[in-house]
Amino acid sequence: MPYVNIKITDEGVTTEQKRKLVQGTTQLLVDVLGKSPATTFVVIDEVSTDNWGLGYHLVSELRQAAAQ
Amino acid sequence: MPYVNIKITDEGVTTEQKRKLVQGTTQLLVDVLGKSPATTFVVIDEVSTDNWGLGYHLVSELRQAAAQ
Amino acid sequence: MPYVNIKITDEGVTTEQKRKLVQGTTQLLVDVLGKSPATTFVVIDEVSTDNWGLGYHLVSELRQAAAQ
Amino acid sequence: MPYVNIKITDEGVTTEQKRKLVQGTTQLLVDVLGKSPATTFVVIDEVSTDNWGLGYHLVSELRQAAAQ
Amino acid sequence: MPYVNIKITDEGVTTEQKRKLVQGTTQLLVDVLGKSPATTFVVIDEVSTDNWGLGYHLVSELRQAAAQ
Amino acid sequence: MPYVNIKITDEGVTTEQKRKLVQGTTQLLVDVLGKSPATTFVVIDEVSTDNWGLGYHLVSELRQAAAQ
Repeated sequence: MPYVNIKITDEGVTTEQKRKLVQGTTQLLVDVLGKSPATTFVVIDEVSTDNWGLGYHLVSELRQAAAQ
Repeated sequence: MPYVNIKITDEGVTTEQKRKLVQGTTQLLVDVLGKSPATTFVVIDEVSTDNWGLGYHLVSELRQAAAQ
Repeated sequence: MPYVNIKITDEGVTTEQKRKLVQGTTQLLVDVLGKSPATTFVVIDEVSTDNWGLGYHLVSELRQAAAQ
Repeated sequence: MPYVNIKITDEGVTTEQKRKLVQGTTQLLVDVLGKSPATTFVVIDEVSTDNWGLGYHLVSELRQAAAQ
Repeated sequence: MPYVNIKITDEGVTTEQKRKLVQGTTQLLVDVLGKSPATTFVVIDEVSTDNWGLGYHLVSELRQAAAQ
Repeated sequence: MPYVNIKITDEGVTTEQKRKLVQGTTQLLVDVLGKSPATTFVVIDEVSTDNWGLGYHLVSELRQAAAQ
Protein backbone atom coordinates (compact mmCIF):
# COMPACT_ATOMS: atom_id res chain seq x y z
CA MET A 1 0.00 0.00 0.00
CA PRO A 2 2.47 2.63 -1.12
CA TYR A 3 1.86 6.34 -1.11
CA VAL A 4 3.85 8.42 -3.57
CA ASN A 5 3.88 12.21 -3.65
CA ILE A 6 5.36 13.90 -6.70
CA LYS A 7 6.03 17.61 -6.39
CA ILE A 8 6.75 19.44 -9.62
CA THR A 9 6.57 23.03 -10.76
CA ASP A 10 3.25 24.20 -12.17
CA GLU A 11 4.31 24.76 -15.75
CA GLY A 12 1.63 23.40 -18.04
CA VAL A 13 1.63 19.72 -17.11
CA THR A 14 -1.05 18.01 -19.20
CA THR A 15 -3.55 15.40 -18.06
CA GLU A 16 -1.84 12.90 -20.37
CA GLN A 17 1.50 13.57 -18.64
CA LYS A 18 -0.14 13.11 -15.24
CA ARG A 19 -1.60 9.81 -16.44
CA LYS A 20 1.88 8.67 -17.48
CA LEU A 21 3.36 9.68 -14.13
CA VAL A 22 0.67 7.69 -12.30
CA GLN A 23 1.02 4.66 -14.55
CA GLY A 24 4.81 4.65 -14.49
CA THR A 25 5.10 5.12 -10.74
CA THR A 26 2.52 2.43 -10.02
CA GLN A 27 4.19 -0.01 -12.43
CA LEU A 28 7.56 0.67 -10.78
CA LEU A 29 6.19 -0.26 -7.35
CA VAL A 30 4.62 -3.40 -8.80
CA ASP A 31 7.82 -4.42 -10.57
CA VAL A 32 10.35 -3.61 -7.84
CA LEU A 33 8.41 -4.43 -4.68
CA GLY A 34 5.43 -6.49 -5.82
CA LYS A 35 2.95 -3.95 -4.46
CA SER A 36 -0.73 -4.09 -5.34
CA PRO A 37 -1.92 -1.34 -7.74
CA ALA A 38 -5.33 -1.34 -6.01
CA THR A 39 -3.77 0.22 -2.92
CA THR A 40 -1.09 2.36 -4.57
CA PHE A 41 -1.74 6.09 -4.32
CA VAL A 42 0.10 8.68 -6.39
CA VAL A 43 -0.55 12.34 -5.56
CA ILE A 44 0.87 15.05 -7.82
CA ASP A 45 1.39 18.54 -6.41
CA GLU A 46 1.91 21.31 -8.93
CA VAL A 47 3.76 24.12 -7.18
CA SER A 48 3.84 27.71 -8.46
CA THR A 49 7.32 28.73 -9.64
CA ASP A 50 7.03 31.63 -7.18
CA ASN A 51 6.78 29.09 -4.35
CA TRP A 52 9.77 26.89 -5.20
CA GLY A 53 13.29 27.92 -4.29
CA LEU A 54 16.57 26.46 -5.51
CA GLY A 55 20.05 27.83 -4.85
CA TYR A 56 18.77 30.98 -3.04
CA HIS A 57 16.44 31.86 -5.95
CA LEU A 58 12.78 31.42 -6.75
CA VAL A 59 12.31 29.21 -9.79
CA SER A 60 10.28 32.04 -11.38
CA GLU A 61 13.44 34.17 -11.24
CA LEU A 62 15.59 31.36 -12.63
CA ARG A 63 13.14 30.92 -15.51
CA GLN A 64 13.19 34.68 -16.29
CA ALA A 65 17.00 34.77 -16.21
CA ALA A 66 17.20 31.73 -18.49
CA ALA A 67 14.77 33.33 -20.96
CA GLN A 68 16.93 36.40 -21.37
CA MET B 1 1.96 19.27 19.61
CA PRO B 2 0.66 17.03 16.84
CA TYR B 3 0.54 17.95 13.20
CA VAL B 4 -2.06 16.20 11.06
CA ASN B 5 -2.29 16.45 7.30
CA ILE B 6 -5.45 15.19 5.62
CA LYS B 7 -5.30 14.79 1.85
CA ILE B 8 -8.62 14.31 0.12
CA THR B 9 -9.88 14.80 -3.41
CA ASP B 10 -11.22 18.24 -4.26
CA GLU B 11 -14.86 17.34 -4.76
CA GLY B 12 -17.00 20.00 -3.12
CA VAL B 13 -15.93 19.69 0.51
CA THR B 14 -17.85 22.30 2.51
CA THR B 15 -16.53 24.56 5.24
CA GLU B 16 -18.80 22.74 7.70
CA GLN B 17 -17.22 19.40 6.72
CA LYS B 18 -13.75 20.89 7.16
CA ARG B 19 -14.77 22.12 10.59
CA LYS B 20 -15.89 18.61 11.52
CA LEU B 21 -12.62 17.10 10.27
CA VAL B 22 -10.63 19.58 12.37
CA GLN B 23 -12.78 19.07 15.48
CA GLY B 24 -12.85 15.30 15.18
CA THR B 25 -9.14 14.91 14.56
CA THR B 26 -8.22 17.26 17.39
CA GLN B 27 -10.59 15.48 19.80
CA LEU B 28 -9.10 12.12 18.81
CA LEU B 29 -5.60 13.31 19.71
CA VAL B 30 -6.87 14.70 23.01
CA ASP B 31 -8.72 11.47 23.85
CA VAL B 32 -6.11 8.93 22.75
CA LEU B 33 -2.86 10.70 23.59
CA GLY B 34 -3.80 13.55 25.91
CA LYS B 35 -2.46 16.17 23.49
CA SER B 36 -3.20 19.87 23.94
CA PRO B 37 -5.65 21.33 21.38
CA ALA B 38 -3.80 24.67 21.56
CA THR B 39 -0.83 23.13 19.78
CA THR B 40 -2.65 20.68 17.52
CA PHE B 41 -2.53 21.61 13.83
CA VAL B 42 -4.75 20.05 11.20
CA VAL B 43 -4.04 20.93 7.57
CA ILE B 44 -6.45 19.79 4.86
CA ASP B 45 -5.18 19.49 1.29
CA GLU B 46 -7.83 19.27 -1.41
CA VAL B 47 -6.26 17.57 -4.41
CA SER B 48 -7.66 17.81 -7.94
CA THR B 49 -9.01 14.47 -9.18
CA ASP B 50 -6.66 14.90 -12.15
CA ASN B 51 -3.72 14.84 -9.71
CA TRP B 52 -4.59 11.73 -7.71
CA GLY B 53 -3.83 8.28 -9.02
CA LEU B 54 -5.12 4.94 -7.79
CA GLY B 55 -4.62 1.56 -9.42
CA TYR B 56 -2.91 3.00 -12.55
CA HIS B 57 -5.75 5.49 -13.14
CA LEU B 58 -6.41 9.13 -12.39
CA VAL B 59 -9.36 9.54 -10.03
CA SER B 60 -10.97 11.82 -12.62
CA GLU B 61 -11.03 8.83 -15.00
CA LEU B 62 -12.38 6.51 -12.30
CA ARG B 63 -15.16 9.00 -11.57
CA GLN B 64 -16.07 9.26 -15.27
CA ALA B 65 -16.13 5.47 -15.65
CA ALA B 66 -18.30 5.13 -12.53
CA ALA B 67 -20.74 7.74 -13.85
CA GLN B 68 -21.36 5.83 -17.05
CA MET C 1 -9.27 7.59 -1.05
CA PRO C 2 -7.96 9.83 1.69
CA TYR C 3 -4.41 9.86 2.95
CA VAL C 4 -3.85 11.06 6.50
CA ASN C 5 -0.45 11.67 8.04
CA ILE C 6 -0.28 12.11 11.82
CA LYS C 7 2.99 13.46 13.18
CA ILE C 8 3.47 13.14 16.92
CA THR C 9 6.43 13.11 19.25
CA ASP C 10 8.02 9.75 19.92
CA GLU C 11 7.14 9.40 23.59
CA GLY C 12 6.00 5.86 24.23
CA VAL C 13 2.95 5.62 22.01
CA THR C 14 1.54 2.12 22.34
CA THR C 15 0.25 -0.14 19.57
CA GLU C 16 -3.20 0.10 21.14
CA GLN C 17 -3.05 3.91 20.90
CA LYS C 18 -1.96 3.68 17.27
CA ARG C 19 -4.89 1.36 16.59
CA LYS C 20 -7.25 3.92 18.11
CA LEU C 21 -5.76 6.73 16.03
CA VAL C 22 -6.23 4.67 12.85
CA GLN C 23 -9.77 3.61 13.73
CA GLY C 24 -10.84 7.09 14.84
CA THR C 25 -9.39 8.88 11.84
CA THR C 26 -10.85 6.39 9.39
CA GLN C 27 -14.28 6.57 11.04
CA LEU C 28 -14.15 10.38 10.89
CA LEU C 29 -13.57 10.31 7.14
CA VAL C 30 -16.39 7.80 6.71
CA ASP C 31 -18.79 9.87 8.82
CA VAL C 32 -17.96 13.34 7.52
CA LEU C 33 -17.18 12.68 3.87
CA GLY C 34 -18.53 9.20 3.15
CA LYS C 35 -15.09 7.90 2.21
CA SER C 36 -14.39 4.18 1.80
CA PRO C 37 -12.29 2.62 4.59
CA ALA C 38 -10.76 0.21 2.07
CA THR C 39 -8.87 3.08 0.44
CA THR C 40 -8.22 5.22 3.51
CA PHE C 41 -4.56 5.32 4.55
CA VAL C 42 -3.37 6.61 7.92
CA VAL C 43 0.38 6.95 8.42
CA ILE C 44 1.74 7.79 11.87
CA ASP C 45 5.18 9.39 12.14
CA GLU C 46 6.78 9.31 15.58
CA VAL C 47 9.31 12.14 15.71
CA SER C 48 12.15 12.30 18.23
CA THR C 49 11.70 15.16 20.73
CA ASP C 50 15.17 16.33 19.61
CA ASN C 51 13.80 16.78 16.10
CA TRP C 52 10.67 18.80 16.88
CA GLY C 53 10.86 22.52 17.55
CA LEU C 54 8.21 24.78 19.05
CA GLY C 55 8.64 28.42 20.04
CA TYR C 56 12.41 28.48 19.32
CA HIS C 57 13.02 25.37 21.49
CA LEU C 58 13.44 21.67 20.91
CA VAL C 59 10.64 19.69 22.55
CA SER C 60 13.32 17.71 24.42
CA GLU C 61 14.37 20.97 26.08
CA LEU C 62 10.78 21.93 26.84
CA ARG C 63 10.22 18.52 28.44
CA GLN C 64 13.36 18.87 30.58
CA ALA C 65 12.36 22.38 31.70
CA ALA C 66 8.85 21.16 32.56
CA ALA C 67 10.25 18.27 34.60
CA GLN C 68 12.28 20.58 36.81
CA MET D 1 20.73 18.15 -0.54
CA PRO D 2 18.11 19.35 1.89
CA TYR D 3 14.43 19.66 1.15
CA VAL D 4 12.46 22.19 3.17
CA ASN D 5 8.70 22.55 3.08
CA ILE D 6 7.19 25.67 4.63
CA LYS D 7 3.44 25.60 5.17
CA ILE D 8 1.83 28.94 5.96
CA THR D 9 -1.66 30.35 5.71
CA ASP D 10 -2.59 31.97 2.42
CA GLU D 11 -2.93 35.55 3.60
CA GLY D 12 -1.31 37.84 1.06
CA VAL D 13 2.28 36.62 1.13
CA THR D 14 4.25 38.68 -1.39
CA THR D 15 6.85 37.43 -3.85
CA GLU D 16 9.44 39.48 -1.98
CA GLN D 17 8.53 37.69 1.26
CA LYS D 18 8.79 34.33 -0.48
CA ARG D 19 12.22 35.31 -1.79
CA LYS D 20 13.31 36.15 1.76
CA LEU D 21 12.02 32.81 3.06
CA VAL D 22 13.95 30.96 0.37
CA GLN D 23 17.14 32.96 0.90
CA GLY D 24 16.99 32.75 4.69
CA THR D 25 16.25 29.04 4.82
CA THR D 26 18.97 28.21 2.31
CA GLN D 27 21.51 30.36 4.15
CA LEU D 28 20.61 28.64 7.43
CA LEU D 29 21.34 25.22 5.96
CA VAL D 30 24.62 26.48 4.54
CA ASP D 31 25.65 28.06 7.85
CA VAL D 32 24.56 25.31 10.23
CA LEU D 33 25.22 22.17 8.20
CA GLY D 34 27.46 23.25 5.33
CA LYS D 35 24.89 22.18 2.73
CA SER D 36 25.23 23.19 -0.92
CA PRO D 37 22.72 25.82 -2.09
CA ALA D 38 22.70 24.23 -5.56
CA THR D 39 20.86 21.21 -4.18
CA THR D 40 18.75 22.90 -1.52
CA PHE D 41 15.05 22.98 -2.31
CA VAL D 42 12.55 25.16 -0.47
CA VAL D 43 8.88 24.64 -1.26
CA ILE D 44 6.29 27.04 0.16
CA ASP D 45 2.69 25.87 0.51
CA GLU D 46 0.09 28.58 1.03
CA VAL D 47 -2.89 26.98 2.73
CA SER D 48 -6.38 28.52 2.74
CA THR D 49 -7.44 29.65 6.22
CA ASP D 50 -10.51 27.42 5.74
CA ASN D 51 -8.18 24.42 5.47
CA TRP D 52 -6.02 24.98 8.56
CA GLY D 53 -7.24 24.01 12.00
CA LEU D 54 -5.83 25.01 15.37
CA GLY D 55 -7.36 24.31 18.76
CA TYR D 56 -10.59 22.80 17.32
CA HIS D 57 -11.16 25.85 15.08
CA LEU D 58 -10.54 26.75 11.47
CA VAL D 59 -8.09 29.64 11.19
CA SER D 60 -10.71 31.51 9.14
CA GLU D 61 -12.96 31.41 12.21
CA LEU D 62 -10.13 32.50 14.52
CA ARG D 63 -9.41 35.44 12.20
CA GLN D 64 -13.07 36.47 12.16
CA ALA D 65 -13.31 36.27 15.95
CA ALA D 66 -10.11 38.30 16.33
CA ALA D 67 -11.42 40.97 13.96
CA GLN D 68 -14.53 41.54 16.03
CA MET E 1 13.56 20.10 -10.03
CA PRO E 2 11.08 17.50 -8.88
CA TYR E 3 10.82 16.13 -5.39
CA VAL E 4 9.36 12.66 -5.01
CA ASN E 5 8.51 11.03 -1.69
CA ILE E 6 7.79 7.30 -1.68
CA LYS E 7 6.24 5.92 1.49
CA ILE E 8 6.25 2.14 1.81
CA THR E 9 6.00 -0.28 4.67
CA ASP E 10 9.24 -1.27 6.36
CA GLU E 11 9.35 -4.91 5.34
CA GLY E 12 12.86 -5.79 4.28
CA VAL E 13 13.38 -3.45 1.33
CA THR E 14 16.91 -4.01 0.03
CA THR E 15 19.40 -1.38 -1.08
CA GLU E 16 19.16 -2.77 -4.60
CA GLN E 17 15.39 -2.27 -4.56
CA LYS E 18 15.84 1.29 -3.31
CA ARG E 19 18.30 1.91 -6.14
CA LYS E 20 15.73 0.67 -8.65
CA LEU E 21 13.04 2.91 -7.16
CA VAL E 22 15.33 5.93 -7.43
CA GLN E 23 16.45 5.10 -10.97
CA GLY E 24 12.95 4.31 -12.21
CA THR E 25 11.33 7.38 -10.69
CA THR E 26 14.05 9.69 -11.97
CA GLN E 27 13.85 8.19 -15.47
CA LEU E 28 10.08 8.62 -15.46
CA LEU E 29 10.40 12.33 -14.73
CA VAL E 30 13.03 12.69 -17.44
CA ASP E 31 10.91 10.82 -19.98
CA VAL E 32 7.50 12.34 -19.23
CA LEU E 33 8.41 15.90 -18.29
CA GLY E 34 11.98 16.41 -19.49
CA LYS E 35 13.22 17.12 -15.95
CA SER E 36 16.92 17.22 -15.13
CA PRO E 37 18.19 14.24 -13.09
CA ALA E 38 20.74 16.53 -11.39
CA THR E 39 17.93 18.27 -9.52
CA THR E 40 15.55 15.36 -9.06
CA PHE E 41 15.24 14.18 -5.45
CA VAL E 42 13.68 10.89 -4.45
CA VAL E 43 13.18 10.27 -0.73
CA ILE E 44 12.02 6.85 0.47
CA ASP E 45 10.29 6.56 3.84
CA GLU E 46 10.06 3.08 5.30
CA VAL E 47 7.15 3.06 7.72
CA SER E 48 6.69 0.45 10.46
CA THR E 49 3.69 -1.80 9.84
CA ASP E 50 2.49 -0.74 13.30
CA ASN E 51 2.34 2.86 12.04
CA TRP E 52 0.37 2.35 8.84
CA GLY E 53 -3.38 1.95 8.88
CA LEU E 54 -5.67 0.72 6.11
CA GLY E 55 -9.37 0.01 6.36
CA TYR E 56 -9.52 0.57 10.16
CA HIS E 57 -6.60 -1.84 10.79
CA LEU E 58 -2.89 -1.55 11.34
CA VAL E 59 -0.94 -3.24 8.56
CA SER E 60 0.81 -5.34 11.21
CA GLU E 61 -2.59 -6.79 12.10
CA LEU E 62 -3.49 -7.35 8.45
CA ARG E 63 -0.19 -9.19 7.95
CA GLN E 64 -0.81 -11.40 10.98
CA ALA E 65 -4.34 -12.21 9.84
CA ALA E 66 -3.08 -13.04 6.34
CA ALA E 67 -0.39 -15.34 7.76
CA GLN E 68 -2.91 -17.43 9.63
CA MET F 1 0.94 29.11 12.77
CA PRO F 2 3.56 27.91 10.31
CA TYR F 3 4.68 24.33 9.97
CA VAL F 4 8.17 23.74 8.60
CA ASN F 5 9.56 20.35 7.68
CA ILE F 6 13.31 20.09 7.08
CA LYS F 7 14.50 16.88 5.45
CA ILE F 8 18.25 16.27 5.56
CA THR F 9 20.46 13.24 5.28
CA ASP F 10 21.20 11.36 8.49
CA GLU F 11 24.90 12.10 8.74
CA GLY F 12 25.73 12.97 12.33
CA VAL F 13 23.62 16.05 12.89
CA THR F 14 24.13 17.18 16.49
CA THR F 15 21.50 18.39 18.93
CA GLU F 16 23.16 21.81 18.87
CA GLN F 17 22.79 21.94 15.09
CA LYS F 18 19.14 20.95 15.38
CA ARG F 19 18.64 23.72 17.92
CA LYS F 20 20.15 26.22 15.50
CA LEU F 21 17.90 25.00 12.68
CA VAL F 22 14.84 25.42 14.89
CA GLN F 23 15.88 28.84 16.16
CA GLY F 24 16.88 30.13 12.73
CA THR F 25 13.77 28.92 10.97
CA THR F 26 11.47 30.27 13.65
CA GLN F 27 13.22 33.65 13.65
CA LEU F 28 12.94 33.82 9.86
CA LEU F 29 9.17 33.35 10.04
CA VAL F 30 8.93 35.99 12.76
CA ASP F 31 11.06 38.46 10.79
CA VAL F 32 9.60 37.94 7.32
CA LEU F 33 5.94 37.24 8.07
CA GLY F 34 5.41 38.34 11.66
CA LYS F 35 4.38 34.84 12.73
CA SER F 36 4.10 33.88 16.41
CA PRO F 37 6.86 31.58 17.70
CA ALA F 38 4.37 29.96 20.09
CA THR F 39 2.59 28.34 17.16
CA THR F 40 5.55 27.75 14.86
CA PHE F 41 6.47 24.08 14.45
CA VAL F 42 9.74 22.89 12.95
CA VAL F 43 10.09 19.15 12.32
CA ILE F 44 13.45 17.75 11.24
CA ASP F 45 13.55 14.43 9.38
CA GLU F 46 16.93 12.72 9.20
CA VAL F 47 16.86 10.41 6.19
CA SER F 48 19.28 7.50 5.71
CA THR F 49 21.67 8.08 2.80
CA ASP F 50 20.38 4.75 1.43
CA ASN F 51 16.90 6.27 1.22
CA TRP F 52 17.72 9.52 -0.60
CA GLY F 53 18.26 9.59 -4.34
CA LEU F 54 19.77 12.35 -6.46
CA GLY F 55 20.59 12.16 -10.17
CA TYR F 56 19.74 8.43 -10.47
CA HIS F 57 22.00 7.52 -7.50
CA LEU F 58 21.54 6.83 -3.83
CA VAL F 59 23.36 9.42 -1.72
CA SER F 60 25.20 6.55 0.00
CA GLU F 61 26.70 5.69 -3.40
CA LEU F 62 27.56 9.33 -4.12
CA ARG F 63 29.31 9.56 -0.74
CA GLN F 64 31.32 6.38 -1.43
CA ALA F 65 32.34 7.61 -4.87
CA ALA F 66 33.37 11.00 -3.45
CA ALA F 67 35.45 9.31 -0.74
CA GLN F 68 37.51 7.39 -3.28
